[in-house]
Amino acid sequence: MKNYVFGTMQKGEKNLITDVPGVRAGHCTLADGDVQTGVTVILPHGGDLYHEKCPAASHVVNGYGKSTGLMQINELGSIETPIILTNTFGVGTAFTACVQYMAERNDGIGRDEGTVNPVVLECNDSFLNDIRGLHVKPEHVFRAIDAAAREFQLGAVGAGRGMTCYGLKGGIGSASRVFEADGQVYTLGALVLTNFGALPDLVICGDPVGRKLTGDNAAEPKGSCIMVIATDAPVSTRQLQRIARRAQSGLARTGGITGGGSGEVVVAFSTANRMISYEPVWHPVVLNDALLDPLFRAATETVEEGIIRSMLEAERVTGLNGNTRESLRDLIDF
Amino acid sequence: MKNYVFGTMQKGEKNLITDVPGVRAGHCTLADGDVQTGVTVILPHGGDLYHEKCPAASHVVNGYGKSTGLMQINELGSIETPIILTNTFGVGTAFTACVQYMAERNDGIGRDEGTVNPVVLECNDSFLNDIRGLHVKPEHVFRAIDAAAREFQLGAVGAGRGMTCYGLKGGIGSASRVFEADGQVYTLGALVLTNFGALPDLVICGDPVGRKLTGDNAAEPKGSCIMVIATDAPVSTRQLQRIARRAQSGLARTGGITGGGSGEVVVAFSTANRMISYEPVWHPVVLNDALLDPLFRAATETVEEGIIRSMLEAERVTGLNGNTRESLRDLIDF
Amino acid sequence: MKNYVFGTMQKGEKNLITDVPGVRAGHCTLADGDVQTGVTVILPHGGDLYHEKCPAASHVVNGYGKSTGLMQINELGSIETPIILTNTFGVGTAFTACVQYMAERNDGIGRDEGTVNPVVLECNDSFLNDIRGLHVKPEHVFRAIDAAAREFQLGAVGAGRGMTCYGLKGGIGSASRVFEADGQVYTLGALVLTNFGALPDLVICGDPVGRKLTGDNAAEPKGSCIMVIATDAPVSTRQLQRIARRAQSGLARTGGITGGGSGEVVVAFSTANRMISYEPVWHPVVLNDALLDPLFRAATETVEEGIIRSMLEAERVTGLNGNTRESLRDLIDF
Amino acid sequence: MKNYVFGTMQKGEKNLITDVPGVRAGHCTLADGDVQTGVTVILPHGGDLYHEKCPAASHVVNGYGKSTGLMQINELGSIETPIILTNTFGVGTAFTACVQYMAERNDGIGRDEGTVNPVVLECNDSFLNDIRGLHVKPEHVFRAIDAAAREFQLGAVGAGRGMTCYGLKGGIGSASRVFEADGQVYTLGALVLTNFGALPDLVICGDPVGRKLTGDNAAEPKGSCIMVIATDAPVSTRQLQRIARRAQSGLARTGGITGGGSGEVVVAFSTANRMISYEPVWHPVVLNDALLDPLFRAATETVEEGIIRSMLEAERVTGLNGNTRESLRDLIDF
Repeated sequence: MKNYVFGTMQKGEKNLITDVPGVRAGHCTLADGDVQTGVTVILPHGGDLYHEKCPAASHVVNGYGKSTGLMQINELGSIETPIILTNTFGVGTAFTACVQYMAERNDGIGRDEGTVNPVVLECNDSFLNDIRGLHVKPEHVFRAIDAAAREFQLGAVGAGRGMTCYGLKGGIGSASRVFEADGQVYTLGALVLTNFGALPDLVICGDPVGRKLTGDNAAEPKGSCIMVIATDAPVSTRQLQRIARRAQSGLARTGGITGGGSGEVVVAFSTANRMISYEPVWHPVVLNDALLDPLFRAATETVEEGIIRSMLEAERVTGLNGNTRESLRDLIDF
Repeated sequence: MKNYVFGTMQKGEKNLITDVPGVRAGHCTLADGDVQTGVTVILPHGGDLYHEKCPAASHVVNGYGKSTGLMQINELGSIETPIILTNTFGVGTAFTACVQYMAERNDGIGRDEGTVNPVVLECNDSFLNDIRGLHVKPEHVFRAIDAAAREFQLGAVGAGRGMTCYGLKGGIGSASRVFEADGQVYTLGALVLTNFGALPDLVICGDPVGRKLTGDNAAEPKGSCIMVIATDAPVSTRQLQRIARRAQSGLARTGGITGGGSGEVVVAFSTANRMISYEPVWHPVVLNDALLDPLFRAATETVEEGIIRSMLEAERVTGLNGNTRESLRDLIDF
Repeated sequence: MKNYVFGTMQKGEKNLITDVPGVRAGHCTLADGDVQTGVTVILPHGGDLYHEKCPAASHVVNGYGKSTGLMQINELGSIETPIILTNTFGVGTAFTACVQYMAERNDGIGRDEGTVNPVVLECNDSFLNDIRGLHVKPEHVFRAIDAAAREFQLGAVGAGRGMTCYGLKGGIGSASRVFEADGQVYTLGALVLTNFGALPDLVICGDPVGRKLTGDNAAEPKGSCIMVIATDAPVSTRQLQRIARRAQSGLARTGGITGGGSGEVVVAFSTANRMISYEPVWHPVVLNDALLDPLFRAATETVEEGIIRSMLEAERVTGLNGNTRESLRDLIDF
Repeated sequence: MKNYVFGTMQKGEKNLITDVPGVRAGHCTLADGDVQTGVTVILPHGGDLYHEKCPAASHVVNGYGKSTGLMQINELGSIETPIILTNTFGVGTAFTACVQYMAERNDGIGRDEGTVNPVVLECNDSFLNDIRGLHVKPEHVFRAIDAAAREFQLGAVGAGRGMTCYGLKGGIGSASRVFEADGQVYTLGALVLTNFGALPDLVICGDPVGRKLTGDNAAEPKGSCIMVIATDAPVSTRQLQRIARRAQSGLARTGGITGGGSGEVVVAFSTANRMISYEPVWHPVVLNDALLDPLFRAATETVEEGIIRSMLEAERVTGLNGNTRESLRDLIDF
């Protein structure tokens, strides 16, 4: 297998978003005939997320997609729930499940502590999955949260089960980088849900793999890509927004042109500088903007590598009406 | 009763958003003990909304709120579903119900025509309503859509059933204005869901009604306000975004200071210049920006009047745990 | 004179933006026949502004205007120069003068310390001033900076010399409020440059003064309004952006409808939490967002009062071609 | 010379932004010892631009830069002047020169037709150029406008004279693509001013040229990139904004990571659908958003190729204090 090297930075221990201390990810996968879908969740930290919110920001590269939670992230600069990824029509169910999950654990929600802001993002898996059947149920969200751990699978799992990337099987990818800022070592990781692109466009580390596989046949890019970025570097919400914007560059390096029908959405959060809801004043530590280039580079590299890994780790899947997506790893001789 | 005059423009026939030809609104109200909530829908036109989309824009005055659909409105400049208002925790259910409603009527959704973008907006009615009970069900959304008509009730109905405005009973308000542009007569209307403010701040047409009722006692503003603006004037999505921004001025005229916990969100659409999904090229008619001042003024006036009407039309309601909101019309001698 | 009371909060010592400790403002006024224009500057603090930047944010209510500096404020969340107000065609000259002023005081600018980001905002004074004559020169900017002080004049001075507000003489206004947050007393002040509105729309503390003066005659709103907000409360750039958005509510309370040709632009900064360019890490103190309502209210009240003061303090001015703007204080019997 | 092929689309006749019918570009170059700078202008069409405005949009990838005009582009969706590129400290002078140029040709400006909105963008050429000397004068702007033509030079000319790209000589680049939409052939072209990046990051069509030249030595990316996109396809301002966002992908394909100190700004305009200021109603033709993918792809490809061409066409330049930037074409054997 060809040894692709994505960028120049040092990888984290497992090359996963969960290399950021405290971050966990989990899946619930539905894979049965016409039902090829699921739920993936990212937990920013293991504590009381509702009262110890994480600084967060969002960025919309192309807004052909559905989501909940971005408006409040933009306003308050924080997340207070797990981030939930699922299929397009499952957004409502995931929202409701998130409300239930959070309300059970916080008596004040919907009473004297205001409401709660579920963050739900999606891609359309209708080629492989019977999306119209609304098969994602609240318990699948709960199971994905319960499954969240330091280690988690990549490829055709969770929300990625039915996704298609560059005409082949996509799904869940991840990568991480470590770097130094002001004498401290920090980690930045990305988790991506890939469901976009046309095969001829696929590029891996500069290698036009897609064209080699297809000749010059054009094809329309389709679909979406959700990109979640986590770091333990002490950055502000404004700085997280800057970081989020770099995700597009990582996607572009894989050949993506951000087609018009693509929902390409980024959420970035930091596990540092928690915003404690019951403290009147916060005392964050914030890196000078002049020190952010390693984070910008890490965001680019991890999204790029995450996308390719989502394909290399994904198995071939047959789903709705016998529709099939081949696996990249079966097609090219590395 | 004192004859308040809101602004200087001519009102539409019924002074409702439905004075805009083709626009309909409807409610489903749940009013039983601790359950004081509901659903309100606005249908932009009576045709095939999924294939004949309306130009639309959104604006977030203060984003402490939940919503679905704004991201795609911002990207594609159109709405393709009814606009659904409900309580905060009902957003997920309303999203799912909207997917179901649209999918039933459009076989291509979730198949070869892509997905569908439900637009759902909310306020938090947890003072009067058992919001944690998740009482809004898909059938309530369907009923509100079925009930949509040229005539509809204002006050403590639909999504407004459990809402609180300036410390008194709020709910659903509406108003409309007619004006001329380039020799044609057009209408602009607003429908608001009011759930914000502190009583001392309430001002009606310059009259500091709130202070008269409370003395100078301060109170913290709470809650949210959803403002939907419709017009049949031929405007572009960029221009609708400009119009949407004026809603804040209407709200400010009633004394609102847009508190930090307020979800103040605007969606504006035009029934002209439909974007037909199966036509390769559109031929809109667009007013010169120099002619938009009447629309800006109408947006301000209708939101202002709509907010006050939501209070004047709302009855006293007792709900969760016996909590009660008084009606403005019972408190002041007009 | 009628005793108008703007809002409910306590005013600062002089009811000026310079009540915020360290903030200074100054004018250079050109008033000679057809030339009725000038420059107004706001200095966020008296130290080395280039290396000790102030957290800042901008908000565009209506973008029919010219400006420099907003893009970098939005990106880096800081200001590093005086804020300069002048007439529309003077923006380029003010930009150049600001570069010169800063470069003279900082050898590193344009060398090893990067560039500098002049913040220049404007209104169009072409009714009273020969704007095409480009009468604002660099020395006028320098003089305004040199004149910056704790005390400064309001009305038809500086950049406000040639401005028109609600059809009468506008210019420079200001107001301030003090409030408590987490046991500390802070100040928020606004300085406005007013050049917008139509007389029939003018409202002072709910009193429809404009209609009393004009009857119901309609008139087209024209022009622009620049609103600068300063505070010593420790807030983040995200929070300053939230504060900036409330300026529109203050303007709306005076009757403004934000006409299509209006450049209504807000810049907000804090003198707390300076971002020291040569420090790798910052240690800001940030108020919990739950404590911001007094700042939101203060922003609304100070902009409202500032606008009205800009008119009450402005003398009658005759300028270009004998054009004249009357003073509000000459027209109504207070 | 190696035959790099950028993307898959068909190039325009001259592979320049001026392949878009009516668009012209011109330079004024200052190259004398320590003065290595200049002005580049793009004229959207040859007619009365002030009264026949072009639909336009802007996008800020990273806002560490100065500019004028973007605020009004965003509000009104149009440009009404030439687009002027120069060095950072020349922005003010270019603004003033543009006001003068437009006012001379339009008696109504600054009188009864309102003001005018100069669009000026910049990069920092202080390594090669004595930027503190403020050598750009109004006449240089006028000369660049006068020189604007269908044919224009690339490389170390005009505003590009003193610029540095990927550690080598950068400057002005351009490229174009033709494509079909709804049976019509259209052109999209880009002109870029390149002043960003670190040499190790440079990638040409997937070939890691930078690393080959430098080994794995890291280097900090510096500087900025201005990207102007023109098309004759009939698109709306909202669609132009979508197109503008794709420029980042083109830049990313060349290896750029959008460093924190980079001013990466995009302006996109269409020569179709002119907005005639004296017509009350416009009748644009607008492509269905479903047909925009060729434009998105063309934006990506032309920015990518334009950046590389800016380097390949640029000669070696020695300027301020004997500082020198080598030419890419001298370093690699194609």
